[in-house]
Amino acid sequence: MERGHYGEDHRAFAELARGFVRKEVAPHYLEWEDAGIVPRSVFARAGELGLLGFAVPQNHGGLGVSDFRFNQILIEEFMAGDCAGVGLNFALHNDICTPYLAKLTTAGQRERWLPGFVAGTLIAAIGMTEPGAGSDVAGIRTAAVDMGDHYLVNGAKTFITNGINADLVITAVRTSPERHRGMSLLVLERGMAGFERGRNLEKLGLKSQDTAELTFTDVRVPKENLLGEAGRGFEYLMSNLPQERMQIAVACLARARVALHTTIEYVSARQAFGQPIGAFQNTKFTLADVATEVSVAEAFVDKCVLELNAGRLTPADAAKAKLWSSEMEFRCIDRCQQLFGGYGYMREYPIARAAADARITRVYGGTSEIMREIIGRDLRLTGP
Amino acid sequence: MERGHYGEDHRAFAELARGFVRKEVAPHYLEWEDAGIVPRSVFARAGELGLLGFAVPQNHGGLGVSDFRFNQILIEEFMAGDCAGVGLNFALHNDICTPYLAKLTTAGQRERWLPGFVAGTLIAAIGMTEPGAGSDVAGIRTAAVDMGDHYLVNGAKTFITNGINADLVITAVRTSPERHRGMSLLVLERGMAGFERGRNLEKLGLKSQDTAELTFTDVRVPKENLLGEAGRGFEYLMSNLPQERMQIAVACLARARVALHTTIEYVSARQAFGQPIGAFQNTKFTLADVATEVSVAEAFVDKCVLELNAGRLTPADAAKAKLWSSEMEFRCIDRCQQLFGGYGYMREYPIARAAADARITRVYGGTSEIMREIIGRDLRLTGP
Amino acid sequence: MERGHYGEDHRAFAELARGFVRKEVAPHYLEWEDAGIVPRSVFARAGELGLLGFAVPQNHGGLGVSDFRFNQILIEEFMAGDCAGVGLNFALHNDICTPYLAKLTTAGQRERWLPGFVAGTLIAAIGMTEPGAGSDVAGIRTAAVDMGDHYLVNGAKTFITNGINADLVITAVRTSPERHRGMSLLVLERGMAGFERGRNLEKLGLKSQDTAELTFTDVRVPKENLLGEAGRGFEYLMSNLPQERMQIAVACLARARVALHTTIEYVSARQAFGQPIGAFQNTKFTLADVATEVSVAEAFVDKCVLELNAGRLTPADAAKAKLWSSEMEFRCIDRCQQLFGGYGYMREYPIARAAADARITRVYGGTSEIMREIIGRDLRLTGP
Amino acid sequence: MERGHYGEDHRAFAELARGFVRKEVAPHYLEWEDAGIVPRSVFARAGELGLLGFAVPQNHGGLGVSDFRFNQILIEEFMAGDCAGVGLNFALHNDICTPYLAKLTTAGQRERWLPGFVAGTLIAAIGMTEPGAGSDVAGIRTAAVDMGDHYLVNGAKTFITNGINADLVITAVRTSPERHRGMSLLVLERGMAGFERGRNLEKLGLKSQDTAELTFTDVRVPKENLLGEAGRGFEYLMSNLPQERMQIAVACLARARVALHTTIEYVSARQAFGQPIGAFQNTKFTLADVATEVSVAEAFVDKCVLELNAGRLTPADAAKAKLWSSEMEFRCIDRCQQLFGGYGYMREYPIARAAADARITRVYGGTSEIMREIIGRDLRLTGP
Repeated sequence: MERGHYGEDHRAFAELARGFVRKEVAPHYLEWEDAGIVPRSVFARAGELGLLGFAVPQNHGGLGVSDFRFNQILIEEFMAGDCAGVGLNFALHNDICTPYLAKLTTAGQRERWLPGFVAGTLIAAIGMTEPGAGSDVAGIRTAAVDMGDHYLVNGAKTFITNGINADLVITAVRTSPERHRGMSLLVLERGMAGFERGRNLEKLGLKSQDTAELTFTDVRVPKENLLGEAGRGFEYLMSNLPQERMQIAVACLARARVALHTTIEYVSARQAFGQPIGAFQNTKFTLADVATEVSVAEAFVDKCVLELNAGRLTPADAAKAKLWSSEMEFRCIDRCQQLFGGYGYMREYPIARAAADARITRVYGGTSEIMREIIGRDLRLTGP
Repeated sequence: MERGHYGEDHRAFAELARGFVRKEVAPHYLEWEDAGIVPRSVFARAGELGLLGFAVPQNHGGLGVSDFRFNQILIEEFMAGDCAGVGLNFALHNDICTPYLAKLTTAGQRERWLPGFVAGTLIAAIGMTEPGAGSDVAGIRTAAVDMGDHYLVNGAKTFITNGINADLVITAVRTSPERHRGMSLLVLERGMAGFERGRNLEKLGLKSQDTAELTFTDVRVPKENLLGEAGRGFEYLMSNLPQERMQIAVACLARARVALHTTIEYVSARQAFGQPIGAFQNTKFTLADVATEVSVAEAFVDKCVLELNAGRLTPADAAKAKLWSSEMEFRCIDRCQQLFGGYGYMREYPIARAAADARITRVYGGTSEIMREIIGRDLRLTGP
Repeated sequence: MERGHYGEDHRAFAELARGFVRKEVAPHYLEWEDAGIVPRSVFARAGELGLLGFAVPQNHGGLGVSDFRFNQILIEEFMAGDCAGVGLNFALHNDICTPYLAKLTTAGQRERWLPGFVAGTLIAAIGMTEPGAGSDVAGIRTAAVDMGDHYLVNGAKTFITNGINADLVITAVRTSPERHRGMSLLVLERGMAGFERGRNLEKLGLKSQDTAELTFTDVRVPKENLLGEAGRGFEYLMSNLPQERMQIAVACLARARVALHTTIEYVSARQAFGQPIGAFQNTKFTLADVATEVSVAEAFVDKCVLELNAGRLTPADAAKAKLWSSEMEFRCIDRCQQLFGGYGYMREYPIARAAADARITRVYGGTSEIMREIIGRDLRLTGP
Repeated sequence: MERGHYGEDHRAFAELARGFVRKEVAPHYLEWEDAGIVPRSVFARAGELGLLGFAVPQNHGGLGVSDFRFNQILIEEFMAGDCAGVGLNFALHNDICTPYLAKLTTAGQRERWLPGFVAGTLIAAIGMTEPGAGSDVAGIRTAAVDMGDHYLVNGAKTFITNGINADLVITAVRTSPERHRGMSLLVLERGMAGFERGRNLEKLGLKSQDTAELTFTDVRVPKENLLGEAGRGFEYLMSNLPQERMQIAVACLARARVALHTTIEYVSARQAFGQPIGAFQNTKFTLADVATEVSVAEAFVDKCVLELNAGRLTPADAAKAKLWSSEMEFRCIDRCQQLFGGYGYMREYPIARAAADARITRVYGGTSEIMREIIGRDLRLTGP
């Protein structure tokens, strides 16, 4: 069944992205996994090709193309090239940071940040999660005390993607004690005194992604670095979460689809007991289930992407897309991996890396449990 | 999220169907379940309102509207009224028999059968399954021996929906020994000598559906009752199975959606330990999962309905829709039923009947195992 | 692997029970299912053979044999004969009521009730669940007001097994408003004015069991019918629940084991696509999983039975046995039933009845959710 | 519930093992994971303490204690110390190689190998799997051509645990073309010309285990290195597989139990939304399920260990233990890991390493699919 939601432009962009992955990323990818980080130059090269910040207005270097299908394509091509880590680093910069930097900013901020952002010379990150507050976003404690012309920031963030590479971190801080109304967003920049990065965290997968703890000790952040209005940080985060979650949903679906195709190839070629293992009924049934899962999830995710484009995607629907895709991905990749036998456990096999990468998608961007809270709340179950 | 694939006409038809269910069906439904059959007059009443055979050409009394969304709506309204059995009887007559009677027939056959079919005075059924050949359609043994101007038919069929009420049974017979090329379709009619109906089978659910064994002992079936060409019966069955499977998929989805809404109401009202049971996190998470399942399946099923309308739905995609929807329905209804505690086991509660009804959808129209065979074969796993 | 926990005596008793089921129960069982109840004479006949109340002291007609393995065997033989309903009626009388009547009673009560109880001429039931309080046992409202020499009882019970046949109902009542300390147990007897039985409820399965609503309108219950001390009813119920739950666990395991064996026979005999369906890898893998489930559960349940005998079985362990066995049973029977295709949906097939019967075991005797509460509480998760 | 199958001696041995893990292994474990191997000295130190080869007869340095509960305890203590890799290296040496070296050997072989084996100065491995034959043991191709006084061995093995450290590899070779009767076992020793080790394979987990490819190019293996009789290799492997599978089952159960306890601690301490996350119903229910899984599996595994000791454990029962424990472990650890949120993905957290380690247990020692084949075959499903 045709997916039907891509047109000519999307297919052309897919070609461009595919070439980039094949030439600039794939040949070096395993090295970068060993290094735990990708070179900054990869961002710059992507920027040259127009792969970053295309939703940014043209006067700031972007294309002004606010169509999430392009973001989806970019992710899909990285997954197809088994280079998930770079794809997700870009997605963080691209899909997740763009709305903050393009919509909440003053003209001056846009001028300072957007050209570099689009060019890939200024790498962005989001600092939301804290060591003591994971799922509980409103529970953050990083404090930003108003000192007149600047805020004095103290606290720590953890699990920050692009944490080592980032030049600019959109940071959730507490500007007053009210749980929700006391949050604001500040942009912390590379080089500010007191802004330290911890070690690159050792994760089970997504090894080319730099993920780090950030600590802030009496960092003076000028007020010009406030995004939008003080006290509205929680609201800003919440309004951007649906897009962040669609980015994850799209990535999960793409990874599962790639795993399916890789596994089809493998079982057709690999022999056991005198026949390809694809000839066993168990293999056939397993992959029939996986193929069905992918088709079904695809219909939903692609529909949600169009809803997002139309400005109609609700938080509950985004949560459904994120919950379903990440759980589906995990189930499917696990079943595929199992068909590889011992090879599925060896890091040189893409299916092994995919399985390791996939384990975190049920957690980041809001755990499956948080998704169920959001969806469940939307059902209004507690009576009149 | 809007479903988006229904227009004005569909919504008007939904209203019509809803009225019919509410007035003509729901008040009597439990009696009919006890009786194990619905009165023939219900078909006639539906025929008067234009609810039957709308895909039949206008010159034969139909509307010539070949848009499966209308079939989908009809099923959805029966499910919404907790009258699944009648809905499925109609669907068998309507969704499944129409293509055979409208497309494979000669002008003479159309004239004989279609007006009554559309009017609901001539009730149709399909005779495919045999006691010794369930999933293995090509394994049927009912023999039709060519006697010049008629066939002499001997054999038996089982699990025939509308088996007691049917006036006309589209019957798969063996006209030659070749496994696939030896099958033909004959229309057996009420009153033919040697055509006997067994007792109405006692099923776990779908109790208002009459399901029967049919036996054929030296039945003389005139050649005018042959559908299409002799020897192409298997091909005809196969080409109509995607629509049959979409009908099941649509019904499964509809039943799961109704169960979700019924359960939301129940848990909001029912109290335990001093609060509505909807306030427990387990209830919320369970129903969040069910709501997600329904939304995800809906995107896929509705997309497949449009593909079917466009003549593009492949057997593998129809199999995915059938497999997924029926398995999803079972999972979801079971989880909903569990939240009703002891009441979920009492036949007076619609959720209990829904659970009993739902158990057969993973079997009829091709078991989940057969669906996996079809989907798996489509993946071409046995190598070059 | 030998089960190992049965000895000579148990095997002899199994033989006795098997004969009883084969001769006195199985030939009539389907009629009784249609009637929704078993004749009282079946209890009497069982009493003659010594199948009832064997834990009752010898001076009251029992055997004084307090070894739950005999109860287990009785259940297993009923399941093996596909006569679950009668087995569970007996179990309710036998396994569940015995401890109340043998341990909480005065000498006078024992003399009044035990001989008939052992003889099967006085049928017992437990009245715990109420329409407004299912899982929430302490939430019952049936009131027993102390009137000096008697209690005046008003209220209603529902889902009472043996509800129509019972001569004696051990009834949980509220003798004071304190949630837990206000509960007491009263024995209501057939013929007391104001003690009415509602209709026999129509359930999805267990159709030979009479399950009824009981209503109490100004029933005068003499104080001699109080079990144990007033105000300790909740405590008594709680201390007997582990045995009740073991009875359910034992029954679930037995039903799953029988389903496995029935299905092995069926798939070995039934042909499709030119071979027994047992020859398909999917069938083999499915039944390998079911066989594994049964072996694993058996080890645990049999171990718990020995713990119960030794007086060491904790409420959390009983809850684990009940939760696991009922969920396992449901999974396994569903998978077996699926292998029967359409026949699995026909009530004449024992697997169909087993599936219908099995649906309630995750609910009665405490839902799976309540079991998780009990087990979870035992883990002490809320920190210091 | 007490496990009941351990006595005084076992508990004393557990203490000894616990001390060894705490002092000699745990402090260095993460370094060894980084190195991908453990120092040979760890084996030697274990040998000194009597932790290796205790089933070896006393005249060869062992204790002659053939009680698998000691093997079980050793594994359990390594798991409890979060040092799975070393535990499994030992188990390979200990549990799996001992029967070959103690039972199939000549007096001369025993003298050559057993003292070093027990002392831990001679490390053993099994060479069964080949690059082209994983699950299909009888499909191996490594050839050993009879040259009179020696065999000339050519071929390759892969996924060999202790592959780098091993001094002695019990190697399955083909001495004639018959599929099963053509297999023999040869002991290849460190230093034989033409016996090469490939690189240490990079696995997703079990990182302190050295797992390697071995290649044999015209290796001259003296006939004194033949184990048992030529042509009986397949039979020897098969007869030892039940013990190998029990070792895996025991390890899976131990890892799941540790994960449960670690997670209980974590959720009791970790706060979110103002309370310990253990206070959420979802957490409680999840861990109730995990606790139930562990208790149930434990009853079965411990029972199988006693059966193994008694020489009664069938291949099908061993397969059930392996299948169930490894699948149970995976389910449970995944659910535990999820409760750790982002921390569950960080290698410094034991739960993260446990999850990575656990992924291979459904594959090694025979995949879950092979286990289902064995169990299914035992059910005799193909009719008379």
